[in-house]
Amino acid sequence: VNPRRLGERRLIDQIKARLREVAPPPPRGIGDDAALLGVPRAGGLLVSTDCLIESQHFQRHEPAYLLGRKALAVNLSDLAAMGGRPVAFLMTLALPAALPPRFLDLLVDGLGSSAREHGVSLVGGDTSMSPGPIVISITILGRTSGRRSDAVLQRSGARAGDGIYVSGALGASATGRLLLQAGWRPRLDARRRHLRGVSPARARGNATIAGGTMATRTRALEALRAHLDPAPRLELGRALIESRIASAAIDISDGLSIDLDRLCEASRAGARLMSPAIPIADSARALAAPLGRDPLHLALHGGEDYELLFTVPASRERLVAGLDAIFIGRITPAARGLLICDARGRQRRLPPRGFDHFAAPLRPGRAAGASRATR
Amino acid sequence: VNPRRLGERRLIDQIKARLREVAPPPPRGIGDDAALLGVPRAGGLLVSTDCLIESQHFQRHEPAYLLGRKALAVNLSDLAAMGGRPVAFLMTLALPAALPPRFLDLLVDGLGSSAREHGVSLVGGDTSMSPGPIVISITILGRTSGRRSDAVLQRSGARAGDGIYVSGALGASATGRLLLQAGWRPRLDARRRHLRGVSPARARGNATIAGGTMATRTRALEALRAHLDPAPRLELGRALIESRIASAAIDISDGLSIDLDRLCEASRAGARLMSPAIPIADSARALAAPLGRDPLHLALHGGEDYELLFTVPASRERLVAGLDAIFIGRITPAARGLLICDARGRQRRLPPRGFDHFAAPLRPGRAAGASRATR
Repeated sequence: VNPRRLGERRLIDQIKARLREVAPPPPRGIGDDAALLGVPRAGGLLVSTDCLIESQHFQRHEPAYLLGRKALAVNLSDLAAMGGRPVAFLMTLALPAALPPRFLDLLVDGLGSSAREHGVSLVGGDTSMSPGPIVISITILGRTSGRRSDAVLQRSGARAGDGIYVSGALGASATGRLLLQAGWRPRLDARRRHLRGVSPARARGNATIAGGTMATRTRALEALRAHLDPAPRLELGRALIESRIASAAIDISDGLSIDLDRLCEASRAGARLMSPAIPIADSARALAAPLGRDPLHLALHGGEDYELLFTVPASRERLVAGLDAIFIGRITPAARGLLICDARGRQRRLPPRGFDHFAAPLRPGRAAGASRATR
Repeated sequence: VNPRRLGERRLIDQIKARLREVAPPPPRGIGDDAALLGVPRAGGLLVSTDCLIESQHFQRHEPAYLLGRKALAVNLSDLAAMGGRPVAFLMTLALPAALPPRFLDLLVDGLGSSAREHGVSLVGGDTSMSPGPIVISITILGRTSGRRSDAVLQRSGARAGDGIYVSGALGASATGRLLLQAGWRPRLDARRRHLRGVSPARARGNATIAGGTMATRTRALEALRAHLDPAPRLELGRALIESRIASAAIDISDGLSIDLDRLCEASRAGARLMSPAIPIADSARALAAPLGRDPLHLALHGGEDYELLFTVPASRERLVAGLDAIFIGRITPAARGLLICDARGRQRRLPPRGFDHFAAPLRPGRAAGASRATR
């Protein structure tokens, strides 16, 4: 599909053809001015939107198939953080006249693979030429897991004394982003879909990891996978709703510290993290130093891990055992702010830093991500 | 609000503050990972998305307040074409580092004014830095007007013999776009919100209308208003549902000819328009010639009128009288395709041409719109 040679109508037809299984016809899907959705008899409707913009969130050389998967995954992660079940999505695509070969086919196929995996339908969208960057904007629709229409996880329910948990190791995605910036590249299968390996930076990359040992390459592949193909924690979100364990939840899209700060602000609370308890991804542990970074810093501020961060009242903490989540600290009264405690019990302020698109002006020719992890 | 100096969080707070009346708090609105919507007990949910991209759909010099109104209006128009009632919307904003003074404040205030007018809430969104164009992507949620969950207008119900109607005069928006391209500019009130007049092109504009008479300026103001501040036909859409008059409907966003072609394709039908019956806006009649265009051509292909195009079975056509709609032709069997008939009864093929973002490659430094009306 070459958008320059196709009219919008043929482009939409091509997208529908590639997504046949997940794009129902009108009135339930694409082809009318709006899509008509069946509404669940019980429960409520959840809706969220998240956008990926070239040079802000990805680079054009990144694998298009995985970019399609990620565009949907970051939206699914928002539903996961509410404990919702995904139902349908809409997609706006703005495309420049010149695209890499097969870019659009691969993007749409990746999107379709994630949509099938999670049982969601494409029910609408908009396409446009872009005068510059590729823009992929998705709106996701879901429903609450329980019958009660207010059975959702929110940011605002944490209380002083609640335990703070994360659903997995952190810092891998930021490590992957730094590897891409250093010139490392993913190797794909013949169909240019799945990650099969890594190619170390060829020139001017960080000398200490250019080339790399087999162990380094294994870690690098883990980091690239985390960055390029994140898995939304939908099952955990639903389990938190069904078990009524969590008092509050958020997904870690921008960074543990900044997303914890958001949760605390919504809950009018503070938090104290235990530095030794924070789960740092093996890839961040192995590669942060050669990349000139601190692994804990990547775990705290790197962003895009798409794990869930949630709080649990002390009376229910024994139930967390079944959930494969990691205790990292405790909610405090608001006046204490965000603190982090090292192994010797020394406390310091934890600055809420992470992935914030507006915190620094864009520097052309340099990935926005470069400034994220260093702030 | 200057996005360069504010973090994303403060930017979102600013937007929420300016939209206080229309942006409810979580869980129903902004502030959690997703918004929770109350679902109507009866009826169905409608959802649609439409995006405005700088240099494709607007220029940065256009009034930001009206741009905010239009971004919502084009989405409301999609609901109007389904006969739906608007409920809520989500907005993704991608903004370059440098914006005209007060651009964002005015944009958000304009959006809020349209949201209040139509009783819709902002329930979510995403903000990002853009490496180039301003991008405003909106997803609109609505509900069906009737109790039946399938009480919607669709493109697919037209049958041979049905009358074809439009809800108002056409070609004014395209005339407004051509005036802007020729260097005419809107004059705004002191608060930079509402249109108060026009400033003719100063230099190198079309000599025959530069300066212009009072009558020319009146027509130019009508055209700019139609282009910059279109009114979605929500009441008519609901009336069509409630009266069960229409067999099919679509909104004229891209052009009468191309949107009629879409309706006919969905209905597996053809159409014959009566050229003398097509309502041409006074501004197009008055200004097309000095702008070097044919007024009928602007009405047929110019796009962005946001009127409704609908079809009515012959047995119900007497009921149209109450609707202030204009008869323009009749649906035919599919094999006939699209035809247009002049006053003497001579027929010719009507090419489905209009606003299509992908039909021509983008030419930097020239408005994409310039090629729309000429195709």
